[in-house]
Order: sequence, then C-alpha cells, then structure tokens
Amino acid sequence: MDVVDVITAKRDGNVLSDDAIDWVIDAYTKGAIAEEQMSALLMAIFFNGMSPQELNRWTAAMIESGERMSFDDIGKPTTDKHSTGGVGDKITLPLAPIVAACGAAVPQLSGRGLGHTGGTLDKLESIPGWRASISNADMRAQLRDVGAVICAAGAGLAPADRKLYALRDVTATIESIPLIASSIMSKKIAEGTSALVLDVKVGVGAFMKDVDRARELARTMVGLGSAHGVNTVALLTAMDTPLGLTAGNALEVAESVEVLAGGGPRDVVELTVALAREMLAACGLGSGKDPVDAVADGSAMDCWNAMIRAQGGDPTAALPVAPHRHEVVTSASGRIVRMDAMAVGVAAWRLGAGRARKEDPVSFGAGVQIHAKPGDVVTAGMPLFTLHADDEARFERALEVLTDAVDIADVAWAQPKLIIERVGA
Amino acid sequence: MDVVDVITAKRDGNVLSDDAIDWVIDAYTKGAIAEEQMSALLMAIFFNGMSPQELNRWTAAMIESGERMSFDDIGKPTTDKHSTGGVGDKITLPLAPIVAACGAAVPQLSGRGLGHTGGTLDKLESIPGWRASISNADMRAQLRDVGAVICAAGAGLAPADRKLYALRDVTATIESIPLIASSIMSKKIAEGTSALVLDVKVGVGAFMKDVDRARELARTMVGLGSAHGVNTVALLTAMDTPLGLTAGNALEVAESVEVLAGGGPRDVVELTVALAREMLAACGLGSGKDPVDAVADGSAMDCWNAMIRAQGGDPTAALPVAPHRHEVVTSASGRIVRMDAMAVGVAAWRLGAGRARKEDPVSFGAGVQIHAKPGDVVTAGMPLFTLHADDEARFERALEVLTDAVDIADVAWAQPKLIIERVGA
Repeated sequence: MDVVDVITAKRDGNVLSDDAIDWVIDAYTKGAIAEEQMSALLMAIFFNGMSPQELNRWTAAMIESGERMSFDDIGKPTTDKHSTGGVGDKITLPLAPIVAACGAAVPQLSGRGLGHTGGTLDKLESIPGWRASISNADMRAQLRDVGAVICAAGAGLAPADRKLYALRDVTATIESIPLIASSIMSKKIAEGTSALVLDVKVGVGAFMKDVDRARELARTMVGLGSAHGVNTVALLTAMDTPLGLTAGNALEVAESVEVLAGGGPRDVVELTVALAREMLAACGLGSGKDPVDAVADGSAMDCWNAMIRAQGGDPTAALPVAPHRHEVVTSASGRIVRMDAMAVGVAAWRLGAGRARKEDPVSFGAGVQIHAKPGDVVTAGMPLFTLHADDEARFERALEVLTDAVDIADVAWAQPKLIIERVGA
Repeated sequence: MDVVDVITAKRDGNVLSDDAIDWVIDAYTKGAIAEEQMSALLMAIFFNGMSPQELNRWTAAMIESGERMSFDDIGKPTTDKHSTGGVGDKITLPLAPIVAACGAAVPQLSGRGLGHTGGTLDKLESIPGWRASISNADMRAQLRDVGAVICAAGAGLAPADRKLYALRDVTATIESIPLIASSIMSKKIAEGTSALVLDVKVGVGAFMKDVDRARELARTMVGLGSAHGVNTVALLTAMDTPLGLTAGNALEVAESVEVLAGGGPRDVVELTVALAREMLAACGLGSGKDPVDAVADGSAMDCWNAMIRAQGGDPTAALPVAPHRHEVVTSASGRIVRMDAMAVGVAAWRLGAGRARKEDPVSFGAGVQIHAKPGDVVTAGMPLFTLHADDEARFERALEVLTDAVDIADVAWAQPKLIIERVGA
C-alpha cells in the first residue's frame, strides 16, 4: 500500500477501501506514515468528506489501535454522556451520580479544558484530595459499588486519536464533521459503554455555531454509535448563553452540589434531568426510578459523596476561593436580552480558570459568577458579574471581553428553548 | 503570524495577504514551519487555488528565498526555454546552440530525470567528460564566449522550491496549477533570463493530459513571467507520440547532433526551429539570423562543440552503447495510427534510461529506438522498435508495457498538429 496513492484517491473524491483505511490508521499510529502525509490526507478529508462506510471503518480502525474496555460483568447496564463543550457546562458533575442513583453504571472518561471551555477533570480537581487517575481494577470496583466514575482516559484507549488530534490541532483540520465524529466516538466506543447520550451544543459559545452543522454532526455520531453496537441518542442544546450562574472550576462544583441538593439554576436542572432520562432510557432503565426522585430522596447526593471519596476527595472540605474579586454592575435598566456565552467563557479563561496550552496549570478559584441572566429585569447599578482571580492584574483583560457581552433592552421577551432537538438512531 | 490562521484562511477560500505569504515561505524555508503544516496548506491550495496577486507574491517569495542571478553585463540578450517534460524530448540539446549561434545567450539551468521522462543533464552526461556543475564565474564566461550553457542549478537558486517540491512529491500535492507554475517560474526568474519560452506538453505522454488544463498552466506561467519582468511566451505542443525516433540518454544525444548537422526527424526539427524563433523574438533578435540558416552554415554545430568542450566534454568521442539489443517487429500490415508516448517512455525507463528514485544511477546506453512513426505504412514483420539495455533481464518488463503501445489500421490519416497553440503575454 502506498500512502501517496491513498492521499491522491481521497483528494480526487474517490472512496477509500476498508483495507486502505485499516492500513493508514495502523501505519500512522506506528509511525510508518509521516506527519506531513497524514496532514495532507486530513485536509483532503476536510474537503471531500467520507462516506458512511468509510467513516465506520475509519472509526473502527481508531478503536482497534488500542484496548477496548468492557463492563458486561459488573451486573448493571452502562450508560454515558458526552458534551461537545460549552461555557458553564458542569452537567457531568451532577448527572453521573444522579444516573448512578437510578441504577445505571456511568463509566465517564473525561478530559481537561483547553481554550474558553472548561474541562470536567479540572473542575473536580478543585475538590481537595480528588484524583483523576485510577487503575482499571479500581474503576471497575467503583462502577460496581458506587455506580459512577469520572476519571481521565488511560493512554491505551484509541491512541490513534491522540496522535491524530494533536496533528489536526496544528494543521487547521479540526473543523471536519467526519474527523470530529470519529475522534469523539472512537474514544466513547472503546470506553465500553453500552449506551451513550450526546449533548451537541449549538450557538455563539459552542464549537458549532449553526444548527444545521450541529444536526449533521449529531446524526453522524448517532450513526457511528449504532454501527458499533452502542445505543446512541443526541440532543442539540442551546449554547448562546452560559449554562447556569458560574463559569470556573470550584464555582461550578459548588453549583453542581446545589443541584444535587435540590436547588441550582433552572437551566442546569432542566438539562441535567433531560440528559439523565435519556441516559436511563438508552440503557433500558427508562421505566425505573426518575432522576427528579433521586435528587429529592438524597440518593444522588449520597452517590456524589461516595464517588468523590472513592477517588480520594473530601466532599465536605471547603472549596478553593480566589483571593481577589471585582464586581461588574449593569449600566442600564431594563430586561437582559442577550448574554454572550463566548465572552463569559473567554473572561473566565483570562481570569485563570482555563489554559492556553496543554501544559499550563489552572486556577481552581478563578472564574465568573453571574447574578442575572437573559429574561431577568435589572436596574442600572445592580451587580451583573463577580469576577474571581488569584491575581488582580487579570481583571483588565477579562473586563475587556465582557464590554459588549450583555444587551439590556425594553422589548418583548420569550425565553429561547434550551433543548432544541432530539436526534435518535 | 500564526501558521494555523494562514492554513485556515486558505482552507476557507480567503485570499492570503502579501505579508502572510512572505512570512510563510520564509519561515518554511528556515524550518520554522513544520512539514505537516506546510503540507496541509499545500492541500488547501490544491483545492482552493490562488488569485493572480497571491500567486505573484508566492512566486516572488520563492525567488527571494535564494540568490537571483543577472546577466545584464554580458553584452547579449538572454533567452531560455523550459519544457514541462515529454518522452523523447531532447529539444534543449540542439536548441541552445542554435539560438546562441543566432546571437543570443542561453543560460539553461536544467534538471535530472525522474520517472518516465528523461532529464537533459542525464542525456548530456552520456558525452565522455561532460560536467553538469560549473561555477557562476565559468557560467558567465561561457555565456559571453560561447553563448550557451546547459548546467545544473546551484543550491542557492530558489531553495524554497527544492524543499516544497520534495514535500509535494510525498503528499499528493504535485498536480496543482499554481504550485506547478510557481515552482517552474521561480527557478527560471531567479536564473536571470530576460526572455523565456515555455514548451507546455499536452497528451498521454505528458503531465497534462488535457488541452484546457495545459492552456491554464501556460497562461498562469506567462502571467507570472510578465509580472516579474521576463518576456514570456508559451507553446502548447502535442505529446501523444514520442518526439523523434529515440528515447534514452546517448540515443537522444546522437539524434540531437543529427539535427545540428542538418538532418534529424521531421518533428524534432519542426519544434526546435519553432522554439528557437520564439526565443529569438522574445529577446529582441527576431529580425536577425534565422535558426534554419544557423544549422545550414554550420555555426550551430560549432557552438555545440564549443559548449560541450567548455564543460569538459569531448564532442568527437564515441557515445556509450548498451551491450544488449532486442528487436520488436510489427505484427500487422497497414498504417501506424497511434504510438503511445507514455508506453515508450516507461519502456525506456524500465530499460535503465531513467530512475525511480533521485539517488538511482541511469544507464547512458539504454533506451528505445523507433523505426516507424504514426503515419508510416508498415508490413507485418518489419522492425518497429530496437530496445537497448545493459542487462538482458530488463527486456521482459519493457516489452510488457509496449504490448498495446501501437495501433496499425487501414483508415484515413491526417498528421495531427505538433504545435497546438501559442499563448502570448
């Protein structure tokens, strides 16, 4: 097999054979295909796409590049969720223990944040003592005993994806639906879950700005899950406004605990319950205990405490607090009609909650607290945001990006839908 | 400047700024842009092309990456020719001394062969003693005294092109008109000629199979030459049938000497004279001595002898002859209506005349002699080809490719035009 022939075929719009795809992924993972050849192939895929058959095979080859886990023997159905990433998106934190409290096992392999969206592991690491890395044996025991694990994916899972993602990042080949879909789904399928719910974000604060592209991505991923025996469903959800009232690591943990305690912001609760019901239905527990009841009877909170303790964390310990605060007040009176999720996400990032490079540390206490959301009526001078940072020097650049983040107007108002559409198999 | 932004801009169909282009070519030449990033950019250019302004700047940046020669002080107008490559295309050999004999200076920087087309330097190296490498000072002196130099381009000329070409070769990004045009023209412009005639080959034995693509390439290159102050003209010429009656290094030198002596195959003479007249017209000598007269009065042959001697060669020495021959005879009687240039080129290559990898040696004596051409009437059993090789084992694979190379039929016949079209500034 000659890699130049494979690149030429894709460049010229031809369909790659199963053998060619298997060979390319295997040879690239082993280092037998040069980075510059793979990046040319990725750019050709960016332009010419992949057929469903090609994409299934490409994804299968990525899964085959590493180990495939299985939790068939733990005695509970497994179900997982993946979000394409948004601002204030802490949903995984309350969701995993709620779903576990309803009888499913949630093997949630998560990542760290890069850029304006935070990472689930970064958030949990703000809890004193909590560890993201656990052994496969401990993961299995925790799934059986507690029902929920949120941890870092080991290096053995879809190593082709790790290599491909790093290459795509530096060659402007991230934004391709087949490449995004195969990257996400290869890891989720290798993880061994039997059911999967995808939260595909759409809007100014999301990777997909446009509902048609988001729907195409959702359909592509649902198709890949089904083809590989994972019962997969997707929700398209709005990401124009930040989710909830916090963006930042410890701030979001505190908000998640509020949700588990029966409170929390309306939008976070709505999305958590909707995703939990989908996860339970997808793994065959749709007629069992309802997520709302698991919160009301305290079993979800018990599960959270057990989950945090099992990974070394102390759920009763005080969360880190940033030493410096800066309050932003409203300059006008009227109804908030827009709050730019991207601006809030970038502000939190600039305050120290996120990282610009993989090797950067994050500040656990830094972030943005939101005091009023779209739909709320405010009076000039009321607090709108509280910014938290370890270093006062960070406020200036965060404030810059928030300058035009909010519109206040006296117009008719209808709350936009949070859950836009459901994409089933 | 961030290279990912530049790749993204080109990928999304935007026009790159002058600054971005200058920076990309400079940083890549210095090794500050990774190969995988440049290959992604090249593939994006393959799909989205370049505007005339972008391509001018890209070519200018490639020229700027190295030295730019000038022959303004040698007292004669300079003119050169470049062929996009064909089978049996030895035209440069008689052409350079003929044009020099008419009063111009020809600074012809040539390359070696790769694949089914031979290289001018490989052909000349079959002359005992001849050296392809000469110093800039010797080149200047030879241009002044003899009028013609055919030599290897030094490493200082458009180094960006050398690096880019090697990358394009392994990433399926050769076949892009802006990339082909900038590669050829950056070297020819840096070479310092004041006039340039392009021989753009079209047909089964050429890189361009299609006249529309060939015309687009010709127009693009003529535009680039004009934009950089080089008076440039292109001829589209047919490459369905091999040029002349030989394909192979020493065999083609012998045929070139026949042309200089006033003989030689009709098509080689026709194309040589046409290109010589264009070269002379382009450098302002169009109303001077005619190429046909330079052959007739022996001055072109004198110039050839002087040119070969100046570079250490002995024009009177016997040329290398391959020790083994194999004759192919016609299997039918009638008129030859097709002789596949690609098949003859590949046969010569397999006999040892060409190389598969840059570092391979070539056989000087190997190649194909042609005894009858399209339009000729033959009787079954007449000789059609004589194959020459250093090793008898090479005949089998050469014969394989020649199996369907020739059609003999009893149909009306009109000789197709050799010179298809002229593309002026």
